[in-house]
Amino acid sequence: MSDYVVGIDLGGTKIYTALATLDGQVLAEVKVSTQPEKGYRAVLERMVATVEEVRRQAAREQPPLRVGLGVPGPLDPVLGVVHVAPNLGWRDMPVKRDMEALLGVPVFLDNDANLAAWGEYRFGAGQGVRHLIYLTVSTGIGGGLVLEGKIYRGASYLAGEIGHITLWPEGPRCHCGNYGCLEALASGTALAREARELVSKGKGKGILSQAGGDVAAITARTVGMAAAAGDPEAFALFQEAGRWLGIGLATLLNLLNPGVIVFGGGMMASSPFFWDRMVQEMQRRALPATASAVQLLQASLGGRSGVLGAVALALEPV
Amino acid sequence: MSDYVVGIDLGGTKIYTALATLDGQVLAEVKVSTQPEKGYRAVLERMVATVEEVRRQAAREQPPLRVGLGVPGPLDPVLGVVHVAPNLGWRDMPVKRDMEALLGVPVFLDNDANLAAWGEYRFGAGQGVRHLIYLTVSTGIGGGLVLEGKIYRGASYLAGEIGHITLWPEGPRCHCGNYGCLEALASGTALAREARELVSKGKGKGILSQAGGDVAAITARTVGMAAAAGDPEAFALFQEAGRWLGIGLATLLNLLNPGVIVFGGGMMASSPFFWDRMVQEMQRRALPATASAVQLLQASLGGRSGVLGAVALALEPV
Repeated sequence: MSDYVVGIDLGGTKIYTALATLDGQVLAEVKVSTQPEKGYRAVLERMVATVEEVRRQAAREQPPLRVGLGVPGPLDPVLGVVHVAPNLGWRDMPVKRDMEALLGVPVFLDNDANLAAWGEYRFGAGQGVRHLIYLTVSTGIGGGLVLEGKIYRGASYLAGEIGHITLWPEGPRCHCGNYGCLEALASGTALAREARELVSKGKGKGILSQAGGDVAAITARTVGMAAAAGDPEAFALFQEAGRWLGIGLATLLNLLNPGVIVFGGGMMASSPFFWDRMVQEMQRRALPATASAVQLLQASLGGRSGVLGAVALALEPV
Repeated sequence: MSDYVVGIDLGGTKIYTALATLDGQVLAEVKVSTQPEKGYRAVLERMVATVEEVRRQAAREQPPLRVGLGVPGPLDPVLGVVHVAPNLGWRDMPVKRDMEALLGVPVFLDNDANLAAWGEYRFGAGQGVRHLIYLTVSTGIGGGLVLEGKIYRGASYLAGEIGHITLWPEGPRCHCGNYGCLEALASGTALAREARELVSKGKGKGILSQAGGDVAAITARTVGMAAAAGDPEAFALFQEAGRWLGIGLATLLNLLNPGVIVFGGGMMASSPFFWDRMVQEMQRRALPATASAVQLLQASLGGRSGVLGAVALALEPV
């Protein structure tokens, strides 16, 4: 029997693959670009090449015992079909079957947010905390739920769409079609939208200068740079995002009473500008006993949450 | 070994007790008033008397194998301590220990909303649906979550406080201290508050007449009577409550992706006045794939959801 597994975190821009022993020790890692424009088959072959590369690095002649694979989009882990992966241009792809044919070993699928949650539960900030919510705040807002020590997937494997809880029924339109979703209010995309609106009103000079004077170049990152430089308008935008995040957290607390919420995603680089405001708003709104039961932590695996979650899935498939 | 169990649904006004065989067949039921004003010990003794009464009815000499007990308030099912039960005037009562001392058999506790969810999962409308949410719309709004076929309780046993998800951050103050909770917008109490406000503005004559001309006598029930009599203002109030319920459901769907939501509680008697509006709003806001995965059902056990959930808890304690 093989003495190792492989985890793959497939993203729109990169493939991140790790090889680990059966007790979870990572022996080799590799990252390559995804190149989704080359098509479905080419992406699968690039993933297979990363598996070969980590095997070579770890000097393993035998194939892995199992492979865990995280995909950015809703999927059916039982059928092994990816319904939609917008960043890859995939629709109803039988990824499990096709990867198993290429690799000759069992492949287990889950979506990237679930596996990031699972990675932080198994190896990271929320290690062993029975009820964990992982929240990623980035261009979008996503999440994964670990309840009773297991990934909670729901009736059609769509649970954990934390970005799409409604916080302001008459708020800005979300790309999902709804109005006032958390994602439409507190994501990096929402922050950049608010910053551009400010500029269009003749304000936000500090933000604009960080974007080289180009309104279209304003992103959450440039707003973060302005806030870091002491710009009060940039800081106010983060405070407002923090307020919405806090309102969303209160709903998560009262509904799911988690023991820990782990935060990941690119916007956490700017967390000093919104963290306290977020916590304050959460405490103001949540039932005191749910607020006192939770720990708010930053992800400790950083960009490795997903790939280590894929490793954990391969170690203990469902 | 005894061949039966007993379930008790302890409410602020009545104690409802049922005796069932080990395969879940109910052989005897009894309801008595709670009389919480007589104090903690007296309420326990009234519960014990109901156990004796169902034993007598079912001609059982032996004590029950186990007793399941639902209590209206947050509690610790492991320690068996009821933290707060406002309707009973209880605070930090060691109910498990005290009931076990009185009955001489193991007693298992849970809160009433969890057990109503569990009753509908085991014996009612959501029988066997792996991921079920029970929502009770009454003077308050409460809920219970059955996830992966088990009651989901959370880190400090407070999960499922569906009435306290925030839907309108600047909305009316909720008795929990937050603003714009679902309960503050769509419960019977909220509906009556809105109706009284209407009357205070010189409107709502149809509603007022159902309350015998007494503003203070306006309740969700009198508004329901007015709506049933064709009063458009009463109907509009229910439509608005339905809209808020629909927004709340969309959040539940996107977060938990349940297979079924079961509705109970007194306001369901008026469901024709808000059900369609609620469903429409939910469908407008939820991700289409979570909306298509869910069935919305009325509780099929009516007032027996809780006591049958207590029976089910006694049959299979956690």
